[in-house]
Amino acid sequence: MNISSQPGAFAPLQNDSFIRACLRQATDHTPIWLMRQAGRYLPEYRATRARAGSFMGLATNTDYATEVTLQPLDRYPLDAAILFSDILTVPDAMGLGLSFALGEGPKFAYAVRDEAAVAQLAVPDMDKLRYVFDAVTSIRKALNGRVPLIGFSGSPWTLACYMVEGAGSDDYRLVKTMLYSRPDLMHKILEINADAVALYLNTQIEAGAQAVMIFDSWGGVLADGAFQEFSLAYTTRVLGQLKTEHDGVRIPSIVFTKGGGLWLEEMGALKCDVLGLDWTVNLTRARAMVGANKALQGNIDPNVLFANPAQIESEVAKALRSFGAPHVGAGTGPTHIFNLGHGISQHTPPEHVASLVQAVHEYSRQMRA
Amino acid sequence: MNISSQPGAFAPLQNDSFIRACLRQATDHTPIWLMRQAGRYLPEYRATRARAGSFMGLATNTDYATEVTLQPLDRYPLDAAILFSDILTVPDAMGLGLSFALGEGPKFAYAVRDEAAVAQLAVPDMDKLRYVFDAVTSIRKALNGRVPLIGFSGSPWTLACYMVEGAGSDDYRLVKTMLYSRPDLMHKILEINADAVALYLNTQIEAGAQAVMIFDSWGGVLADGAFQEFSLAYTTRVLGQLKTEHDGVRIPSIVFTKGGGLWLEEMGALKCDVLGLDWTVNLTRARAMVGANKALQGNIDPNVLFANPAQIESEVAKALRSFGAPHVGAGTGPTHIFNLGHGISQHTPPEHVASLVQAVHEYSRQMRA
Repeated sequence: MNISSQPGAFAPLQNDSFIRACLRQATDHTPIWLMRQAGRYLPEYRATRARAGSFMGLATNTDYATEVTLQPLDRYPLDAAILFSDILTVPDAMGLGLSFALGEGPKFAYAVRDEAAVAQLAVPDMDKLRYVFDAVTSIRKALNGRVPLIGFSGSPWTLACYMVEGAGSDDYRLVKTMLYSRPDLMHKILEINADAVALYLNTQIEAGAQAVMIFDSWGGVLADGAFQEFSLAYTTRVLGQLKTEHDGVRIPSIVFTKGGGLWLEEMGALKCDVLGLDWTVNLTRARAMVGANKALQGNIDPNVLFANPAQIESEVAKALRSFGAPHVGAGTGPTHIFNLGHGISQHTPPEHVASLVQAVHEYSRQMRA
Repeated sequence: MNISSQPGAFAPLQNDSFIRACLRQATDHTPIWLMRQAGRYLPEYRATRARAGSFMGLATNTDYATEVTLQPLDRYPLDAAILFSDILTVPDAMGLGLSFALGEGPKFAYAVRDEAAVAQLAVPDMDKLRYVFDAVTSIRKALNGRVPLIGFSGSPWTLACYMVEGAGSDDYRLVKTMLYSRPDLMHKILEINADAVALYLNTQIEAGAQAVMIFDSWGGVLADGAFQEFSLAYTTRVLGQLKTEHDGVRIPSIVFTKGGGLWLEEMGALKCDVLGLDWTVNLTRARAMVGANKALQGNIDPNVLFANPAQIESEVAKALRSFGAPHVGAGTGPTHIFNLGHGISQHTPPEHVASLVQAVHEYSRQMRA
């Protein structure tokens, strides 16, 4: 398909702190954005979703997707926007039939559980995902250079979890049964997923995404050994095919394995710019383990946002101090991008997010002074 | 209350491999038992539970509890038995009203969510838990020295999760809200829980338990820093009060924090004999991190048991090789107790458990030859 980001049509970037921090360059504050920042905790999001009728109605409509992506930026001085979409768009485009029942997680009409189903899988025609790329271009235009736009995808393994289970799972019994009893089938799914994810992210980049993130949301459920073979290897395969530049501009990449703290040293070797961390990880230790060649993103517990503003500020200060002073100057050391360790809860009081963002900006400026 | 294990009434231990491995003494094979080994995957368990009418009907009846505890030992040459009970008996005895709806997790009639509810908490009268101690003594007698009997409790933090949430949780929002916004209340709950757990385990030891295990099932959901303050500190408090000997015999203690692999070095300082590990932990690394003063227990993914026997054997060999040769001789190095990294799934084919146990015994004997 013909995707063009029409670079001339995009306004120059005004706040580049997020991109600079991704590339380990100096910033005057620690940039912050929040996973799932456009979401149900915002009344304006709930209003738009009600108009759209369903989650997929929201995600597949360019105007709605643009509207909700910008909502949190109108409330808070966040340093990045993230495409409003779902991690499961790729298997949906493979023909598995994604749907979201109200109040429940995602479901596929068809699960991939045997050799015949695996044989039918292929990298989908990107035309089926045009609604995503259209949304990327529309959001990028609407942002008008305020902050950069992050594109994203689920990781090959995380997509495979949903494709085999057919929905979320408590124990990952079906996908792990395939992994342990038919590793050949699992590898076949993961190869296709990796190539599909790489193409999907590259097309988002062509459409206007200024950074991309791979959500390995379920990497942490794997056993040691299985993680390296069935998740990390395929994240590596995606990164090997990923554009690192577009129209002469560097496109940073972020890899986030929830529950992956034990494998941080191995993830330090990934060909990406940033590693995302959940709240179980100690930032001082992570920085020492990963070394100078990665920026780190994270990592306070989203539940901190249920405490009062003074306590939120105290947790922010703790996290910033735990990371320590960022090295300044290109390529001289890790930098920190503030985020939660997981998506923001739908029950979060919106005014607490304002306290969080303000605390990160103020305290990180003080630390640099 | 008056609990007497009547040591004269108990037969001498025939298979002491589990106890020896706990105490880092040589064994001719790697002992194995399975978390939740008396459970729903066994048709004979399901039959007894049907007769008992409910989970609590089963757990509170001495004869039923004895019967189901011994069922897996009649099928498999396991090296230890574990008391059939639930981790939530202590808060139930505190008056919170534990129940299990069919096919659902545990629920409390009363949750502990505010200052008034916390003020009412106290270490319960152990008389309310007499059914547990009676079961311990009855099982110990019925075992007749075949293998040792493990007693257990939930950790102070894990109990607190259920006490505040009132049931299981996906996000631990309520308990973490209290933790971050009212740490004083959380500490108060945890102090009471720690003292109750210590008394509960000591009374199990007096009743006949030959080892005890603390299940910190939800320690891994805490943020770094919060884990040390709200879970580890109270496990330490329990261990400080725990009997390490009874009637002149050493009683080993095991601490298992699911998802606690990142804190293994800190857990190495705990005053316990064994650390349990889930499947995300690399046994070679764990052994190096923990050093020579702890035995390690674990850790294959319970989902391995859905693969065929040849694949189960291969995973067993991998785990045993990953741990490496056990040091022999008292106190000279860590030893390995084989287990799953979490409770066995109710969907496990019982014949696969036979393959697992046989593989562990045979391969570990070969490794010693």
